[in-house]
Amino acid sequence: MNDSQDCSASNAKRIKIGDNEVNEKITTGTVNRSTLSGIGLVSVLNDNSSRKVACLHGKVASDGNDGQLCDAVIILEKKPFDQNNLQQLLSKKTKLTVDLQNDIYSTFTAFPPPELSDIKATIICPATEKHIRKYTKQKSFIVQETASDYQNITLPYLEKQIAANVFNIQWVFNILEHKVESERIIYEDPDKENGFILLPDMKWDRVDKTALYVIAIPHKRGLRSLRDLSAEHIPLLENILTKGLAVIEEKFGLKSSELRVYFHYQPSYYHLHIHFNNVELDMPGTGALRAHLLADVIENLTLSGNYYRNKTFTFELRENDNLYLEFQRCGKV
Amino acid sequence: MNDSQDCSASNAKRIKIGDNEVNEKITTGTVNRSTLSGIGLVSVLNDNSSRKVACLHGKVASDGNDGQLCDAVIILEKKPFDQNNLQQLLSKKTKLTVDLQNDIYSTFTAFPPPELSDIKATIICPATEKHIRKYTKQKSFIVQETASDYQNITLPYLEKQIAANVFNIQWVFNILEHKVESERIIYEDPDKENGFILLPDMKWDRVDKTALYVIAIPHKRGLRSLRDLSAEHIPLLENILTKGLAVIEEKFGLKSSELRVYFHYQPSYYHLHIHFNNVELDMPGTGALRAHLLADVIENLTLSGNYYRNKTFTFELRENDNLYLEFQRCGKV
Repeated sequence: MNDSQDCSASNAKRIKIGDNEVNEKITTGTVNRSTLSGIGLVSVLNDNSSRKVACLHGKVASDGNDGQLCDAVIILEKKPFDQNNLQQLLSKKTKLTVDLQNDIYSTFTAFPPPELSDIKATIICPATEKHIRKYTKQKSFIVQETASDYQNITLPYLEKQIAANVFNIQWVFNILEHKVESERIIYEDPDKENGFILLPDMKWDRVDKTALYVIAIPHKRGLRSLRDLSAEHIPLLENILTKGLAVIEEKFGLKSSELRVYFHYQPSYYHLHIHFNNVELDMPGTGALRAHLLADVIENLTLSGNYYRNKTFTFELRENDNLYLEFQRCGKV
Repeated sequence: MNDSQDCSASNAKRIKIGDNEVNEKITTGTVNRSTLSGIGLVSVLNDNSSRKVACLHGKVASDGNDGQLCDAVIILEKKPFDQNNLQQLLSKKTKLTVDLQNDIYSTFTAFPPPELSDIKATIICPATEKHIRKYTKQKSFIVQETASDYQNITLPYLEKQIAANVFNIQWVFNILEHKVESERIIYEDPDKENGFILLPDMKWDRVDKTALYVIAIPHKRGLRSLRDLSAEHIPLLENILTKGLAVIEEKFGLKSSELRVYFHYQPSYYHLHIHFNNVELDMPGTGALRAHLLADVIENLTLSGNYYRNKTFTFELRENDNLYLEFQRCGKV
């Protein structure tokens, strides 16, 4: 993943951008900081005004790196209202200006104090061109991938990317081997064949159960995606479904009737993983063009052991996704 | 609109709720205020965590009104990021706490200053019961409908509703017989077995192709939904797919790679119909819990003629949907 040379070397760096100058520590792309200063805004990559998410391209400079600028993607997302803090929000601390009033309806602009206005900031640094493309708004097209398209286009593409270290999943292995993030593990079944690790998705704060989002990652290696599954994996899938649901009910109080459990195809990384989230969450990636319910997957593999190896998948790709370009090059779109 | 007597009379009131005590002026339900204090939180009516909107039921008290409490609905919505203030947001004013860090990704909770954290607040006061219902969320649950659940619960329920004229589809027959809306027909294949009518969905203005949404309705009767399809219907489905896509490309310039083509299960009415819409449209009803791609349906029926008659469908129902109540009555949820 460290395919950008710009800011992967030094350990402690002095950030200088615009009128900000702060001492901050950067380790191999890790940004340790106490404020958001020191990031120069290059452009707005995407801005979802209904979901209150902005994706930015920024530059982080460091004098420990020959003054080179390091590309960063900054994803800002306003957090949902915290139900525990609502009465606090309805207080003198929240100043108002009046926008409009009539008999019954009044609208205001409210300015809550910082502690009640938290936003989630994700910084990807160093950001590769692929990261920047990923967060840039693009037109999407529907692609149909037959079994032979997978063999002739998608798989060679994936293998090339893996060989070139672009699709590096070492970070997944680090999680599975407890080298990183072991404190975040919600549950682990250590069985090498059917076991898995359950941990919160990056998008979830681990507190607000209405936004619950956890990921199950099997210990078994070599399963890149749904495409690789066959009847022999039914015990693995049933184990993840049964234990995943039981653990989430026990720890977070959500029942199976409150959870959406699914794969992505195409996934965002090629070590098999399964998404569990609150069905009340209206979120991207749950559409019929990308999400495949685990219950359906188990049923389909029971019906036909090679269901997903033979299937023609219909999915959406962005116009400058490299896989889309491959399909285009092969005259398939 | 003034159907609540509680706080429509006085002009200047002294708000007392919880630990807040402030002098504020209230005129006929109009809330003149410079802070959000003086509102007692009764309950959270709705909380959309992806769109960052919360709807609250509150009580506003006033000593000029015999101490009676006035019902209010408070709608809070975080504002989208303001593109003009982004560089200001990336400054020392925005404090951070670290949530998680690995090689490349760092996530933080950021606390911007109040002037960059504005939210839109709407207060409806006095609020009637109808206002409160309007802003109250209905919880959804996931239901699994096996083939026998369909026979024993869903089908008898549908037949009862049809007999009682609740699920009346005479309006569909009127369209198919050109008794109504014939001027809206985009295309018709009159064949009784494999033919269909293509017409714009009510949600589409027929002009803006970025919002294109058309419906195909087969002439064939007796097909209530996906559940009724078997291998013998493949020619009908292929005919709709091929001709539907060709007509949309010819008349509206959208290619098959720009269109999402799917069934709903459960559908909103029980005469088979197929949705065609622009894949760029982020709209409800396209999720994996409700949408079934026509291409997948054809492939599944080719694999197994009774695929949809045998399938266990997983879908979402609202808690006071009558079908949900039937599943509950039968001990299935």
